[in-house]
Amino acid sequence: MTTPAAASAPGRRIPVAVLGATGAVGQTFVRLLEGHPWFELAAVAASDRSAGKPYAEAAHWLGGEMPARVAAMPVVPCDPSCIDAPLVFSALDAAAATEVEAAFARAGLFVLSNARAYRLEADVPLLIPEVNPDHLALLDHQRARRGWTGAIITNSNCSTMVAALALAPLHQAFGVAKVFVTTLQAVSGAGYPGVPSLDILGNVIPYIGGGEEEKIETETRKLLGSLGEDGVVPAAMTVSAQVTRVPVEHGHTVCLAVGLTRSADADAAVAVYEGWRGAIASLRLPSAPVPPITVTRDVDRPQPRRDADAGRGMRITIGRVRRDPILDLRLVALGHNTIRGAAGASVLNAELLVARGLLGA
Amino acid sequence: MTTPAAASAPGRRIPVAVLGATGAVGQTFVRLLEGHPWFELAAVAASDRSAGKPYAEAAHWLGGEMPARVAAMPVVPCDPSCIDAPLVFSALDAAAATEVEAAFARAGLFVLSNARAYRLEADVPLLIPEVNPDHLALLDHQRARRGWTGAIITNSNCSTMVAALALAPLHQAFGVAKVFVTTLQAVSGAGYPGVPSLDILGNVIPYIGGGEEEKIETETRKLLGSLGEDGVVPAAMTVSAQVTRVPVEHGHTVCLAVGLTRSADADAAVAVYEGWRGAIASLRLPSAPVPPITVTRDVDRPQPRRDADAGRGMRITIGRVRRDPILDLRLVALGHNTIRGAAGASVLNAELLVARGLLGA
Amino acid sequence: MTTPAAASAPGRRIPVAVLGATGAVGQTFVRLLEGHPWFELAAVAASDRSAGKPYAEAAHWLGGEMPARVAAMPVVPCDPSCIDAPLVFSALDAAAATEVEAAFARAGLFVLSNARAYRLEADVPLLIPEVNPDHLALLDHQRARRGWTGAIITNSNCSTMVAALALAPLHQAFGVAKVFVTTLQAVSGAGYPGVPSLDILGNVIPYIGGGEEEKIETETRKLLGSLGEDGVVPAAMTVSAQVTRVPVEHGHTVCLAVGLTRSADADAAVAVYEGWRGAIASLRLPSAPVPPITVTRDVDRPQPRRDADAGRGMRITIGRVRRDPILDLRLVALGHNTIRGAAGASVLNAELLVARGLLGA
Amino acid sequence: MTTPAAASAPGRRIPVAVLGATGAVGQTFVRLLEGHPWFELAAVAASDRSAGKPYAEAAHWLGGEMPARVAAMPVVPCDPSCIDAPLVFSALDAAAATEVEAAFARAGLFVLSNARAYRLEADVPLLIPEVNPDHLALLDHQRARRGWTGAIITNSNCSTMVAALALAPLHQAFGVAKVFVTTLQAVSGAGYPGVPSLDILGNVIPYIGGGEEEKIETETRKLLGSLGEDGVVPAAMTVSAQVTRVPVEHGHTVCLAVGLTRSADADAAVAVYEGWRGAIASLRLPSAPVPPITVTRDVDRPQPRRDADAGRGMRITIGRVRRDPILDLRLVALGHNTIRGAAGASVLNAELLVARGLLGA
Repeated sequence: MTTPAAASAPGRRIPVAVLGATGAVGQTFVRLLEGHPWFELAAVAASDRSAGKPYAEAAHWLGGEMPARVAAMPVVPCDPSCIDAPLVFSALDAAAATEVEAAFARAGLFVLSNARAYRLEADVPLLIPEVNPDHLALLDHQRARRGWTGAIITNSNCSTMVAALALAPLHQAFGVAKVFVTTLQAVSGAGYPGVPSLDILGNVIPYIGGGEEEKIETETRKLLGSLGEDGVVPAAMTVSAQVTRVPVEHGHTVCLAVGLTRSADADAAVAVYEGWRGAIASLRLPSAPVPPITVTRDVDRPQPRRDADAGRGMRITIGRVRRDPILDLRLVALGHNTIRGAAGASVLNAELLVARGLLGA
Repeated sequence: MTTPAAASAPGRRIPVAVLGATGAVGQTFVRLLEGHPWFELAAVAASDRSAGKPYAEAAHWLGGEMPARVAAMPVVPCDPSCIDAPLVFSALDAAAATEVEAAFARAGLFVLSNARAYRLEADVPLLIPEVNPDHLALLDHQRARRGWTGAIITNSNCSTMVAALALAPLHQAFGVAKVFVTTLQAVSGAGYPGVPSLDILGNVIPYIGGGEEEKIETETRKLLGSLGEDGVVPAAMTVSAQVTRVPVEHGHTVCLAVGLTRSADADAAVAVYEGWRGAIASLRLPSAPVPPITVTRDVDRPQPRRDADAGRGMRITIGRVRRDPILDLRLVALGHNTIRGAAGASVLNAELLVARGLLGA
Repeated sequence: MTTPAAASAPGRRIPVAVLGATGAVGQTFVRLLEGHPWFELAAVAASDRSAGKPYAEAAHWLGGEMPARVAAMPVVPCDPSCIDAPLVFSALDAAAATEVEAAFARAGLFVLSNARAYRLEADVPLLIPEVNPDHLALLDHQRARRGWTGAIITNSNCSTMVAALALAPLHQAFGVAKVFVTTLQAVSGAGYPGVPSLDILGNVIPYIGGGEEEKIETETRKLLGSLGEDGVVPAAMTVSAQVTRVPVEHGHTVCLAVGLTRSADADAAVAVYEGWRGAIASLRLPSAPVPPITVTRDVDRPQPRRDADAGRGMRITIGRVRRDPILDLRLVALGHNTIRGAAGASVLNAELLVARGLLGA
Repeated sequence: MTTPAAASAPGRRIPVAVLGATGAVGQTFVRLLEGHPWFELAAVAASDRSAGKPYAEAAHWLGGEMPARVAAMPVVPCDPSCIDAPLVFSALDAAAATEVEAAFARAGLFVLSNARAYRLEADVPLLIPEVNPDHLALLDHQRARRGWTGAIITNSNCSTMVAALALAPLHQAFGVAKVFVTTLQAVSGAGYPGVPSLDILGNVIPYIGGGEEEKIETETRKLLGSLGEDGVVPAAMTVSAQVTRVPVEHGHTVCLAVGLTRSADADAAVAVYEGWRGAIASLRLPSAPVPPITVTRDVDRPQPRRDADAGRGMRITIGRVRRDPILDLRLVALGHNTIRGAAGASVLNAELLVARGLLGA
């Protein structure tokens, strides 16, 4: 996972910045970028309230030890004029993202966004490198239409990421027509301070605000859709989602029941998973897990505590693949929500941009 | 809930015993029976290892304070000759239940069993008083066929109870053809010591042994089935179950997607639930909640911490009733697994026996 | 616990209000006052932001079901002119309490306060009815000095309450000279939203802001102090406190090591506890548990999950009383932090006012 | 931490075995030894029940992914004749350890034991390399007295390890005369299956069986003691311990109040900690963290979730150093209980043996 092909690695580390760097996802960006072989964290940006303070003071650090270099960096405002880098990662919330991300794209920067603001725009790629790297072709359209010299590339909602990665190999092999998705989501998906402990200790909340279920139902179809004349044609599948929040720190568990276009049994599905390498295996991107998906045969796996960190939090683990008495297949998928489902997804998207030579001369 | 109709209340309290009284479900029986208006706990029985000890010593009490009267009772063996009562509640595990429960039925006692040993036998009622009290008619058949003067009446698996109660009103009103069930089950469902903390703290286990998913798929159909010539004809529905264990003490959360025979929308379903009183409302049994089901309109309910104790743990709470894009309806149901889903279910079954005059002269 | 002596019960229920009624402690007041035999909840008051809304809308209810009568009550501002009652309970935060509570006292009302604003004022009783009911004599001084026709009576910090109740019998019998207090405090002590789940799930935080340790060290001495010419003379003991927050919903565990003025062994201490009834047992106040303290001999008790609800959350449970190799005694005390340690404490204080005839004609 | 000095590194990796390899501590040994620069895991041994099975089948693996090489290794009995290695790590329980460890020592092997069986024997080193490496001198005495050609070296109880490491620098600088220790211990300290989830979810247990408090009180004094004619002379300090179990996976939090022989304030204590490197810093042992102790100034640290993994689980984090109103100092220490407090401690002890040239020619 750490042996980038000589062909794609940039000559020297590319300076990057994180927007919304003090929040939970922003911190995950910081952690993933410190020591990244291709990128160098050059600036941490956040709201005006934090700007000017050293990062150590502005951020309530949630991990173990804050990287010393970053601790001393001054927080800058989320303004393109304050940031000297060709690429920014956005951990902004949806409200701020609409304007700020556009400002950066207009100013000529690539914005790798974890926010939902642009995910469903017709000319904005909602990208999983292993699944739909061809959707990057939308960038020409986006720039032409909006008059931007930069661009916005988005990654999906965290639970959608786990579901879509689990569905992609089946969709490619058999066609997915119907999916029931029931999630058990970790509290880190709600950011910080996020879920009050009085609401979740020893409890389950069968709801997540902000349209979580709708995101799963629509984003999955775009991710698995195909490029048409006017953007992405959503995959012709129906998705039904029920989300829940559970007292787990990291790792979203996603239970799936899947109806296929061409019927297949559990053995065939497992064989497909075990052979699947995704669309970009040959690029050997630094953050791309090899393989992207593992199938476990242990009857009681995957589990967040034991499997969320697989492939440094970038690999999806699938288990309990079996026949479904109503549709075709049942299975359980698990992925790390703040890494594969958020910051790590954007970093991987950025690596694809670099490998494709899209990032400047 | 505590105003038994004069007509059905017994003249004096009926002596009863608990088999397997030291385990987690056994303790719940003890707690529910202390102070019960119709029953008097006359004996606590357990394995030979415990027999002879005072209950306080034999049981690792999991609740607050052990009832003082019971604490001093000597544990007796699970042998009909040691118990002077017309009715016993069985919290035995499946392995022990097969022989022991038969011995008590043969000896002329009513066995109200929470074990799975006899649940699917053609001549044994799998009973929810509000749903299928007519299944008690199997008792004649059972006695005739087995030569017993007593009888065995069973209650369902704990998560099945929540699912079946949630489905019954819909089945009666519209017919249920297909159901996806995804459960988030509390640790108390596994008894004591049950789930090791290292397996479940901050974790989810997407599996429960002992055929939990199969129980839901088969017991639900028997519970909602109809009486035929040769016993119960299972309901003509297909059930698909995915179970998970979550770090919750009490209260099983059950997510349902339901396909109906006669289509109905969410408003119609809510109206059915709100009007539903079940088959035995007029009997006003001491443990029967009025109503048996509540529908919440709060978008983030039901929750185990806040709703499991509704109706003293005997009421099911249903929420998030809404259209399903694939089938007809989606909803979330929640019930207390060791009360409504285990000991309380058996106690309610026993109350029905009494009210029906089946318990002796 | 629910048989008030005819002598002290008021002729009819006294109307009362709750200030700060929408927060976590405010809700506990509401729950305790609904159905209280002496008091009738006549108004719920909160910040201007909530004023005017029905209580059901203004409060994010944390318990099971909100009492229907209260749900419909309109929230009023925290202004004496809006409340027609001789007595208010204050769940205000310290910042708001200073002015608001004074305004009510000035307007002639009794303010039973859970806030820390006035706890250490020389003329304000910091009251535990079982321990220092004579401190009510400060009220004359308070009114004279401040020109109030009403008065403020406070209860202690939640962990102090557990510690002070555990120490009082020992102090009365042997004199307490030195105490090490190490607490393991429940999250409900921080109110709502309070502790973020990302901070406490599977974690311990060895610190609680707002001067928690200082409160324990100073309030304990005032509670156990004696009345002098110029107010309360703090008890001549040294208290050292280390607080921690643990992932527990309700129930503060307090580990104590105690140095006595007159040495005593564990048996003597247990005997003192078992004979202790406190100063107001004869009053039979509705919320006063009988006895106020229980000693458990189970080696692994008290525990928050199993003992916090003892005496409806008003009784302290003490265990593991044993010799200390450095001082005299070690023991573990546990109490319900939002009941005995907050709202229930104020309600009990109010009951004492009524029984003493201090509340009007 | 991973740059062993050329001087001390063995020429080639030394074969080692783990006794009790299938349990929780045994698994931690396996994980730490896979990829160890000096040792090569040559055999996994366990009870006769497991012997003969592949390790993957015999062990319920608690971590993420089991190392593939070990998964395939056959479990052998805990018998010296079945193991071809000069050194074994023992994760046996106390009952088995007494005989089995002696058998291995008699057969000429070094036994690095995490069991308590021999910890307090006068001729057995209870070793922390940074603190008392001179205690290894007991080995001559041990061999002479018992006629062994091998030897037993033990590490302390897990919470003692954290306390003793936190006390050692203070003891060396100022002398420690009195210590109050209150622990909040993680569930992994109880092994697997260990603590039932029904006992600990949302709960605190103020007791740990097996003499946990006595271990802290006696082992600490031996660890900080000095070598005399007849073995170790325990340090002249009095230790008072209160232990609790909390719902945390890994990481023991230890609250300390310390009375010194030569008084010192918090600043002096912090200075001592920050300058402390321990007795073996120059050896640069592979598992020895540099420095062994960190002092945090964050007011709410150390925390198990955020600090237990410091120094790969081998570093102790100390915080909240402050004046104590009764004794001299108060502080909170935290360490990883299954790494620094168990398996990692034994591995570090073994590295010291190698560096000292004690492990054969």
